Amino acid sequence: MKNFLHEDFMLKSETAKILYHNYAENMPIIDYHCHINPKDIAEDKKYSNIAEIWLTCGDHYKWRAVRSNGYSEEYVTGNGSDYEKFSAWANTLPKCIGNPLYIWAHMELKRYFGYGGNLNPETADRVWNLCNEKLQNMSAKKIIKDSKVKLICTTDDPTDTLEYHKIIKDDKTFYTQVIPAFRPDKGLHIEKAGFKEYINKLSETSGIEIKDMKSLYDAYSKRLDYFVSMGCKTADNGFEAIPFILEADNSIANDALIKALNNQELHIAEIGIYKTALMLFLAEEYHKRNLVMQIHFGVSRNNSDRLFKSYGPDAGADSIGGYDCIYALSRLLNELDRKNVLPKTVLYSVNPSDNAALVALIGCFQNNDCNITPNGTGKLQHGSAWWFNDNNIGMREQLINLANNSLLANFIGMLTDSRSFLSYTRHDYFRRILCDVIGDYIENGEYPNDVAYLSQIVSNICYNNTNNYFEFGI
Amino acid sequence: MKNFLHEDFMLKSETAKILYHNYAENMPIIDYHCHINPKDIAEDKKYSNIAEIWLTCGDHYKWRAVRSNGYSEEYVTGNGSDYEKFSAWANTLPKCIGNPLYIWAHMELKRYFGYGGNLNPETADRVWNLCNEKLQNMSAKKIIKDSKVKLICTTDDPTDTLEYHKIIKDDKTFYTQVIPAFRPDKGLHIEKAGFKEYINKLSETSGIEIKDMKSLYDAYSKRLDYFVSMGCKTADNGFEAIPFILEADNSIANDALIKALNNQELHIAEIGIYKTALMLFLAEEYHKRNLVMQIHFGVSRNNSDRLFKSYGPDAGADSIGGYDCIYALSRLLNELDRKNVLPKTVLYSVNPSDNAALVALIGCFQNNDCNITPNGTGKLQHGSAWWFNDNNIGMREQLINLANNSLLANFIGMLTDSRSFLSYTRHDYFRRILCDVIGDYIENGEYPNDVAYLSQIVSNICYNNTNNYFEFGI
Amino acid sequence: MKNFLHEDFMLKSETAKILYHNYAENMPIIDYHCHINPKDIAEDKKYSNIAEIWLTCGDHYKWRAVRSNGYSEEYVTGNGSDYEKFSAWANTLPKCIGNPLYIWAHMELKRYFGYGGNLNPETADRVWNLCNEKLQNMSAKKIIKDSKVKLICTTDDPTDTLEYHKIIKDDKTFYTQVIPAFRPDKGLHIEKAGFKEYINKLSETSGIEIKDMKSLYDAYSKRLDYFVSMGCKTADNGFEAIPFILEADNSIANDALIKALNNQELHIAEIGIYKTALMLFLAEEYHKRNLVMQIHFGVSRNNSDRLFKSYGPDAGADSIGGYDCIYALSRLLNELDRKNVLPKTVLYSVNPSDNAALVALIGCFQNNDCNITPNGTGKLQHGSAWWFNDNNIGMREQLINLANNSLLANFIGMLTDSRSFLSYTRHDYFRRILCDVIGDYIENGEYPNDVAYLSQIVSNICYNNTNNYFEFGI
Repeated sequence: MKNFLHEDFMLKSETAKILYHNYAENMPIIDYHCHINPKDIAEDKKYSNIAEIWLTCGDHYKWRAVRSNGYSEEYVTGNGSDYEKFSAWANTLPKCIGNPLYIWAHMELKRYFGYGGNLNPETADRVWNLCNEKLQNMSAKKIIKDSKVKLICTTDDPTDTLEYHKIIKDDKTFYTQVIPAFRPDKGLHIEKAGFKEYINKLSETSGIEIKDMKSLYDAYSKRLDYFVSMGCKTADNGFEAIPFILEADNSIANDALIKALNNQELHIAEIGIYKTALMLFLAEEYHKRNLVMQIHFGVSRNNSDRLFKSYGPDAGADSIGGYDCIYALSRLLNELDRKNVLPKTVLYSVNPSDNAALVALIGCFQNNDCNITPNGTGKLQHGSAWWFNDNNIGMREQLINLANNSLLANFIGMLTDSRSFLSYTRHDYFRRILCDVIGDYIENGEYPNDVAYLSQIVSNICYNNTNNYFEFGI
Repeated sequence: MKNFLHEDFMLKSETAKILYHNYAENMPIIDYHCHINPKDIAEDKKYSNIAEIWLTCGDHYKWRAVRSNGYSEEYVTGNGSDYEKFSAWANTLPKCIGNPLYIWAHMELKRYFGYGGNLNPETADRVWNLCNEKLQNMSAKKIIKDSKVKLICTTDDPTDTLEYHKIIKDDKTFYTQVIPAFRPDKGLHIEKAGFKEYINKLSETSGIEIKDMKSLYDAYSKRLDYFVSMGCKTADNGFEAIPFILEADNSIANDALIKALNNQELHIAEIGIYKTALMLFLAEEYHKRNLVMQIHFGVSRNNSDRLFKSYGPDAGADSIGGYDCIYALSRLLNELDRKNVLPKTVLYSVNPSDNAALVALIGCFQNNDCNITPNGTGKLQHGSAWWFNDNNIGMREQLINLANNSLLANFIGMLTDSRSFLSYTRHDYFRRILCDVIGDYIENGEYPNDVAYLSQIVSNICYNNTNNYFEFGI
Repeated sequence: MKNFLHEDFMLKSETAKILYHNYAENMPIIDYHCHINPKDIAEDKKYSNIAEIWLTCGDHYKWRAVRSNGYSEEYVTGNGSDYEKFSAWANTLPKCIGNPLYIWAHMELKRYFGYGGNLNPETADRVWNLCNEKLQNMSAKKIIKDSKVKLICTTDDPTDTLEYHKIIKDDKTFYTQVIPAFRPDKGLHIEKAGFKEYINKLSETSGIEIKDMKSLYDAYSKRLDYFVSMGCKTADNGFEAIPFILEADNSIANDALIKALNNQELHIAEIGIYKTALMLFLAEEYHKRNLVMQIHFGVSRNNSDRLFKSYGPDAGADSIGGYDCIYALSRLLNELDRKNVLPKTVLYSVNPSDNAALVALIGCFQNNDCNITPNGTGKLQHGSAWWFNDNNIGMREQLINLANNSLLANFIGMLTDSRSFLSYTRHDYFRRILCDVIGDYIENGEYPNDVAYLSQIVSNICYNNTNNYFEFGI
């Protein structure tokens, strides 16, 4: 039996321990998809207390746990004090047995605050005081540096000026690269409230008056150029369901856009055709610029009207959809592939029932386009276990599915997808699971115990594949 | 290696053994959902032979196994003698390796009949004689008492007079509480044969002439009041697919009901609207009375016309549907939540592919309503692994999914869902798996080895959470 | 830790080792579903190099791996030399950690070529030379004989003359039975290009001019009779989605066929009705002749237009569909069962999310028809883990699902589904997993450690059940 967070925790076999401690543990980090605010880095944000960095920064994972433990919204996103919110969380945490939140919270306490005990109602005050004291000497940049993070991709709207990215770049004492990722979701979701206002903003930022698809495309192209000039290497696209209507006719898409800009209602087919046309255009533009296209899908968003009204999106009221996106995704990829404009693509479904189908699907479009070289990384990737799946089982299933029907050794590995600066420990968590999965293959006699080669596989998945795939050039 | 049914069977780690033997094993039982007949308890039913209590009582799990072993219906639900049916079962059982039937049967033989050997063709006659002899001194009440069952919820139609519940309550020598659960399915399934006759019966029992939605609602309210006066704490609702049509208009529902009562055919949309309207009404009534709403869904019923004709429903010809119920379920919960009338809710899908999505969904509606207090049990629950999933893998997956994205420590645990008085050993089976799952977390260093706290978690899931959640007050 | 391919690899428990080495390992093989060409057997095909038997024979599993490793089509199905294709594969193989390809390739090198090392870029030339030398003394028949294969079912179109089966049968020095399986897919897929030409060919082969459903049925009956006269015991049917339209009207099916033969376009409903009608007819004909009906479904075929144009079908561009076939399948089985014409049936979905639902479904139609005898094998079977699932996890999940809700002991076991003569090692791979799964039950105390009985279960699943179920009579 291993003590909680023992140096070998989650590492069952000897091979797993060797691979983790001698190789994985010390690799630097590339966090190629997260939701931290570049302003916070630029301003080297400091936190006055642990609730601010852990809870009020928007960590809806923890919010859901606290609500599930019977707390009212006052203690979650409401008017409760930071201390009260922290207390509610400390009361909830011991109940998180088996939940990655339990491990993440304690890894963070150990690494960033030097606290090796457990957080529970009895220790809550001690932890509160200890962390808050330590936070006085901590800041966004310091945490990033101490976490050996070499590169961060933030998630940015095309209308973003990226001014904070410039400031960060200009700080010659800060060596971590912080580059933008292009996230055009708001312009795709033509059916949502605020679309017209958003397009106006995009017109303004781009300096191109958007009045039809042609001008919309021009505006996006211009912003893409700007993002690329700022070091952008990837675009991220989030969908509930994948839009794909084969007969996507540009003139219908054009009519739909004009109707939306004139506050007219759209038919569901028009919405689908608009999204399909724009997505096909964007993907082609990504391909031109050699950007990696990430597609996150299968989410059912804002299930609770009550929470949406009281807080807005990202309140912790999203859940798992999916099940039926694979066919549309196949058609989208094929349409791009057919025209030789399919960019490097990473697919993430939040529904774990899609794992097998996604791995099977990427295998249909692999080839040597997009700077992919023999013995490089694969052109299409099944993205790391995501959101409701970034736990021991979810990660293990993603890795094993990938191994079963693709090349695990070519995988680009982990990202945090986080809103908190303390989440880099999740890379550690992932690396333990990775080494344990590989250790099991060795233990079971399914692969040679060639540590030299295995260490390459592990180092590549932890870092090198990511660097090569996105062409970060570090 | 452990001998079959060794005291430590299914308990791999030391922690699992300690938690099971020192805590879980000895907790009493609350069986909050089952299908035993209250009449059998009231009359303290005795069984003349083991086939009667094991096979002919309606255990379609065993029937399916016997049919899968090549026996004709004569030996299952047909005219074969009890002895012949028992023989067919004894010939089949050794083939059930890995099937929980194998373990349940032998746990029952060991606990209730003191038989520690295996049942197979060679031992069949010995077991037949031994069990039949023992059964002379056994009865429904004695089995319940010996199983340390503190409370049973039966499943009862709103038209039920609950006369047997009264008789049971009046027996001052019998300490187990036996209370009804409200199951209004027959009034919801407006499209099924016999609906009109059923509504007539409901009119009669309630004393309210049902001729429209208004009077239907009144009848249900009255029956709910009566059930509550008889101690009822929960309502159970079974669906193949979850009905939810947002535009459920009461006047259309009303027209649909009137058409059905006049033997007119209904359009599929009318059926959906009627069900949605009635379900929204019922859920609100549950909320008023602080009842727990259980929703079982995803079943594909009566797949075989042949068995339906020869035997009727519950012949062992049901299977797994589902896949696409999550969205409708989300809309149903949201509609109730929006109006502040969402009762405490337990969700069960018979499709294990829904596990992850269900746990993600309940997290969207958790709060402190319905007497839920901080550090209590969660308002919404993912129900215990059900029917085709109540096996080692199914239970393990349900527990681990719950742990991954919710609070395992708040889980309300196991029920038998059984038609047989011998099924309380299933709680034992569940508890072993629960302790083994928790033991694995400890073994792996994912949670502190704090036996005092772990024993609380285990005892709560085995008993206390159930008592608190349903407010049984024992 | 076990060395790679150690004699005990993948066998964790002592019971697993005993069952494998003393029983499973030495059972002969029945390969009841594969895609090898009977011509190659008849002509006792020899191979000039290892690329020919491993890669260019059509093994799209390996092709997908090589593409995923960044090779262009030249090195896969293109103009590259055999040596270049082998090199690309040798460069790719070490990356296949966890992929069954890694194990299969090395099992084949060990068993058929006596090479116990690893294949990687360093050893590639040595392996190339060694294998090519050994291939000089190898041939199709020799490999089959050395693999202890007692019977092979090929997959054959109804228009096939089966001339090679005759030649093989006439070779009195070759003891392996090679019999045809009836695969009528081309006549079912009325919507596909080439349908009319295919029907003309069927007219010719059968000697019956097909101009309506009646004559189509007659032609199929005649071909079925011929196949049966050639020893055929099974028919295999492949679908993306299962066709079932309850109102399948023969006159509409008839109109649809006539339209298709006149190059008229069909409505999607007509296509469904035609397929349903023909499938119901064929299934009834299988039943009459006591053939086993195999149904493979859930595949999404030819996702990449690019690969379809450059290579055609079976290019390695198929993936996983499914999700929504279970209901139609239930209706199809019921319609046949209702009329007492449901043949013995084996169901395979390529979507592992269907595992639980399929096992639940077969349980609804089990009985003692079709020569099924008590304590025989079950009438309906959940087929062995297939295609994207024929790996350690996929096989394990199929076996455990089957055990959970059916009778594992009645399972008919493994087939290769392969296009290569070297794939018989997959039976070995399967048998290890089977013994390991059973060993786990014993280890965990879930079943008695009765080696005599366990060895029967194992031998039956490896060989005897297959022989009995198909009534091969060997």
